[in-house]
Amino acid sequence: MTQTLSEQDVLFPLNDGIGSVALIQHVGDDKSVVNAARVSFGGDNRMPLDEKDARLIRYLLKHQHGSPFEHNSLTFKIVAPIFVVRQWMRHRVGVSYNEISGRYVEIKDQFYTPGNFRQQAKSNRQASIEATDSLNQEKAHEVWEAAWKNAYEAYQQLLSLGVTREQARGVLPLTMYTEFYFTCNLRSLFHFLALRDHPGAQWETQMYARALAQLSEPLFPSSFEAWRSLNAHE
Amino acid sequence: MTQTLSEQDVLFPLNDGIGSVALIQHVGDDKSVVNAARVSFGGDNRMPLDEKDARLIRYLLKHQHGSPFEHNSLTFKIVAPIFVVRQWMRHRVGVSYNEISGRYVEIKDQFYTPGNFRQQAKSNRQASIEATDSLNQEKAHEVWEAAWKNAYEAYQQLLSLGVTREQARGVLPLTMYTEFYFTCNLRSLFHFLALRDHPGAQWETQMYARALAQLSEPLFPSSFEAWRSLNAHE
Amino acid sequence: MTQTLSEQDVLFPLNDGIGSVALIQHVGDDKSVVNAARVSFGGDNRMPLDEKDARLIRYLLKHQHGSPFEHNSLTFKIVAPIFVVRQWMRHRVGVSYNEISGRYVEIKDQFYTPGNFRQQAKSNRQASIEATDSLNQEKAHEVWEAAWKNAYEAYQQLLSLGVTREQARGVLPLTMYTEFYFTCNLRSLFHFLALRDHPGAQWETQMYARALAQLSEPLFPSSFEAWRSLNAHE
Amino acid sequence: MTQTLSEQDVLFPLNDGIGSVALIQHVGDDKSVVNAARVSFGGDNRMPLDEKDARLIRYLLKHQHGSPFEHNSLTFKIVAPIFVVRQWMRHRVGVSYNEISGRYVEIKDQFYTPGNFRQQAKSNRQASIEATDSLNQEKAHEVWEAAWKNAYEAYQQLLSLGVTREQARGVLPLTMYTEFYFTCNLRSLFHFLALRDHPGAQWETQMYARALAQLSEPLFPSSFEAWRSLNAHE
Ligand SMILES: Cc1cc2nc3c(=O)[nH]c(=O)nc-3n(C[C@H](O)[C@H](O)[C@H](O)COP(=O)(O)OP(=O)(O)OC[C@H]3O[C@@H](n4cnc5c(N)ncnc54)[C@H](O)[C@@H]3O)c2cc1C
Ligand SMILES: Cc1cc2nc3c(=O)[nH]c(=O)nc-3n(C[C@H](O)[C@H](O)[C@H](O)COP(=O)(O)OP(=O)(O)OC[C@H]3O[C@@H](n4cnc5c(N)ncnc54)[C@H](O)[C@@H]3O)c2cc1C
Ligand SMILES: Cc1cc2nc3c(=O)[nH]c(=O)nc-3n(C[C@H](O)[C@H](O)[C@H](O)COP(=O)(O)OP(=O)(O)OC[C@H]3O[C@@H](n4cnc5c(N)ncnc54)[C@H](O)[C@@H]3O)c2cc1C
Ligand SMILES: Cc1cc2nc3c(=O)[nH]c(=O)nc-3n(C[C@H](O)[C@H](O)[C@H](O)COP(=O)(O)OP(=O)(O)OC[C@H]3O[C@@H](n4cnc5c(N)ncnc54)[C@H](O)[C@@H]3O)c2cc1C
Repeated sequence: MTQTLSEQDVLFPLNDGIGSVALIQHVGDDKSVVNAARVSFGGDNRMPLDEKDARLIRYLLKHQHGSPFEHNSLTFKIVAPIFVVRQWMRHRVGVSYNEISGRYVEIKDQFYTPGNFRQQAKSNRQASIEATDSLNQEKAHEVWEAAWKNAYEAYQQLLSLGVTREQARGVLPLTMYTEFYFTCNLRSLFHFLALRDHPGAQWETQMYARALAQLSEPLFPSSFEAWRSLNAHE
Repeated sequence: MTQTLSEQDVLFPLNDGIGSVALIQHVGDDKSVVNAARVSFGGDNRMPLDEKDARLIRYLLKHQHGSPFEHNSLTFKIVAPIFVVRQWMRHRVGVSYNEISGRYVEIKDQFYTPGNFRQQAKSNRQASIEATDSLNQEKAHEVWEAAWKNAYEAYQQLLSLGVTREQARGVLPLTMYTEFYFTCNLRSLFHFLALRDHPGAQWETQMYARALAQLSEPLFPSSFEAWRSLNAHE
Repeated sequence: MTQTLSEQDVLFPLNDGIGSVALIQHVGDDKSVVNAARVSFGGDNRMPLDEKDARLIRYLLKHQHGSPFEHNSLTFKIVAPIFVVRQWMRHRVGVSYNEISGRYVEIKDQFYTPGNFRQQAKSNRQASIEATDSLNQEKAHEVWEAAWKNAYEAYQQLLSLGVTREQARGVLPLTMYTEFYFTCNLRSLFHFLALRDHPGAQWETQMYARALAQLSEPLFPSSFEAWRSLNAHE
Repeated sequence: MTQTLSEQDVLFPLNDGIGSVALIQHVGDDKSVVNAARVSFGGDNRMPLDEKDARLIRYLLKHQHGSPFEHNSLTFKIVAPIFVVRQWMRHRVGVSYNEISGRYVEIKDQFYTPGNFRQQAKSNRQASIEATDSLNQEKAHEVWEAAWKNAYEAYQQLLSLGVTREQARGVLPLTMYTEFYFTCNLRSLFHFLALRDHPGAQWETQMYARALAQLSEPLFPSSFEAWRSLNAHE
């Protein structure tokens, strides 16, 4: 029911070789979901997952019985831009975080640059769409790169003037990379995915959500199958 | 960092061969605490726990830095009297439960009988003390046994009259045994122990808290050592 | 946006003059939901609720935007049988409880007796249905009453033998009344109602859920209207 | 026990006329703390707070009985720099947030500039100290101002190139002001204050913590008095 990872499984959701999602450790599987549910009628057991178990998983998700999906744990190490992390850390329940501190350490010059800039969506004021030719990608890249380089230089200058790290970082942009440990369980992960692997979420955040799903799905294949087919939101 | 239990470790906190605490699965160790903390300064690593790591653990507990103790998971299967479970399930954060349902299944005739009845404490109106000779233990046992037997008989009668299980169980007493899965992490476990392995808590509940500690301590020896020496409450 | 209650609004969900739900205090209204949501686009205001506001509320509930429903608070004082309270207190998030302690005080002889006993449902193993004539109601009442009276007598005997309150109560049945303060917000209330004012929940628990809704609905009429029409589960 | 605010109480913790903390609504008072605790022994009442009540509050805080401090609610509207808000929103329990969205609206050119830049503390690698003369304040201000102006210009350029708001904001710095509703209760507020009105926390964050305390203390004078005298951390 548990497994030691000799090597980390790592994905690069933003395709820039920096932003990453690595599975560090986990415990629990589809059978532990079933056993937690079956304690309700005193029928938990150690046999391999069977068809009846799979049906029970589907039933639980369909009827909003989320608690049996909590008796497991997934820990990831994430490298992501701050604007993504600000959205991520709004999730409060069944989730744990520990992040690198810009008060302790000098921040590295790692910043995310979009492969493609997107345009504002008309239909949904919060979302974005693929850009048309009218958006000058090259120019946008230029502005973007100059902006973070300028900011990082200012950061370095403030540090060399003797300004404390906790203040100096104030000039660094939201596209700056940060890193953190993230621990969740299958219930809080499904909740995260329902909200963040969703067209309403920011594209970059969707990419991270998908990476989490990609690494977790093989560990809970029946639960994911049921969840996807029901498009359950809990 | 993880370990599969081929056999369950089981303890019987109330010494009656019924009430039990079994460790079902877990993930994480002292090193995972340290690594989660070290991400703050980008220094997590896969080396074995050393003296510096142990000092860091102590530092974290002393200064209320509880979040690094969340990236791990412990699942127990518990059999306990309802009056203990009512106190237990008041803990809400970083804890998960799934309990047998008296609506689904007919309840078994398993009830806890105190080995020794205690007397009301004078100093603390909520607590109890060892009984003196003036308490007639034999008589108390008689009353107790007769009470739950009478209740269980009424339950059986109601069921045979055709009353639904969910109502019929209403006559069953708080000393009735129930069972549940309990998942926590080291932070929520320490919080539980601070409140429940404490002279202010009900004696039976203290016994369960100690059983949890006894099964968990070998998995996180440094953290427990620091926590005990600090008598930390977080 | 706030209101002092000079008198408590009290309902008796189980029609026995004992079990009760009283609204003690509250803060927030439909407009505070809207304002919390509108901060997203910097448009919160102090004007009375209008049709656009009502549409926004509906939009939020439809699209799982639950957080704006958290900036308010409702406190109730509840008197309910333990078997109901055991289900209630499984709700962990956005909810607060303080309950009378059977360790501090001697428990009163107040017990719930069903007006009508129900039969086991065939379709749903957890649920119950209206009883047919074959269920001898009179006989069931007799058994029930005798059971709790017997239990309460045993409790009294144990106390007079000198047994501590925290142990003695172990013989008391789940139908015993207890009382507690319950504080929630509109989001956690809707979650509670979705699960407990639902045919799958125990009938007695449904009655309490409805009483909560009845007292809260006049305070958040637009939110309730939208929630009911969407039959939203979040 | 509740009070409508005809005017908002507003404080400016960073003394720049932008960063602000306003109390929007609240419910509950010292007496509601006492009543929630007294339900334990069935003794809640509607009389004015007396000396015995004040002693009970002190007792509760001293013995980690935090739950009676949850039956109340405080809502604030906050304007704060993102680097402060990132720390703030790590608090997960008993707290609710709704923040302005840089995906919905164009971000205003409001940025925090420190009145005084501080130097890195030697003793505590995470903290900072008052700067000595060796730190060229004027030069630091110049670099800081140029940095955010440059960033804001890049943001404007990206928008005018047609880049979607959610991406364009990526170049904006952590010193940018954002605004949000924050709802907590007295227990979660005390926890926040213990960690954030603390010399180990970032100075700017301490200022916000103190503003919260300043606005809340008059509403719960007995609880604050006890809490301060005990320097309780829960
Ligand atoms: C001076 C200082 C320095 C910091 N430095 C860093 C840093 O370098 N890196 C970093 O990532 N963070 C840092 N933090 C943030 C810190 O890790 C916490 O995220 C933050 O202080 C919120 O505290 P909390 O978890 O106690 O509060 P909440 O999240 O509000 O939780 C309240 C209480 O609930 C319990 N709890 C909540 N969730 C869980 C859970 N999942 N499991 C078990 N128990 C739970 C705990 O008892 C906790 O005290 C720092 C904080 C301070 C004050
Ligand atoms: C009809 C019915 C039958 C039931 N039968 C049983 C039974 O047989 N046995 C039994 O034990 N229970 C049973 N329950 C109780 C059920 O398992 C839940 O404990 C209860 O309904 C509270 O629901 P919740 O966890 O969604 O609420 P809360 O605890 O209030 O949580 C609110 C939300 O927060 C999230 N959340 C909270 N904690 C976590 C966490 N640790 N990890 C991830 N996400 C979290 C979830 O999204 C959840 O919806 C039953 C409930 C109902 C309604
Ligand atoms: C000796 C003893 C006697 C007790 N007597 C009584 C009694 O007479 N009556 C009674 O009702 N209970 C009683 N309790 C139970 C007590 O009130 C708590 O419900 C229980 O101890 C769980 O503690 P907790 O809330 O700290 O834990 P959790 O619910 O697990 O919370 C963990 C932490 O998260 C934070 N937190 C969680 N939820 C919130 C929230 N909504 N708002 C703010 N912060 C939050 C707090 O920091 C808390 O410490 C007693 C407990 C003990 C140990
Ligand atoms: C597309 C999109 C757009 C967004 N736009 C904005 C925006 O403009 N502004 C903004 O501030 N945020 C925005 N958010 C964030 C959103 O408000 C939530 O903070 C975030 O999605 C986390 O969701 P959650 O609260 O359900 O999750 P969690 O905090 O993990 O909570 C899990 C579940 O627990 C329950 N719960 C947790 N805490 C409480 C509580 N205190 N009271 C009652 N129930 C509780 C709820 O059932 C909840 O579903 C947006 C999110 C998405 C997906």
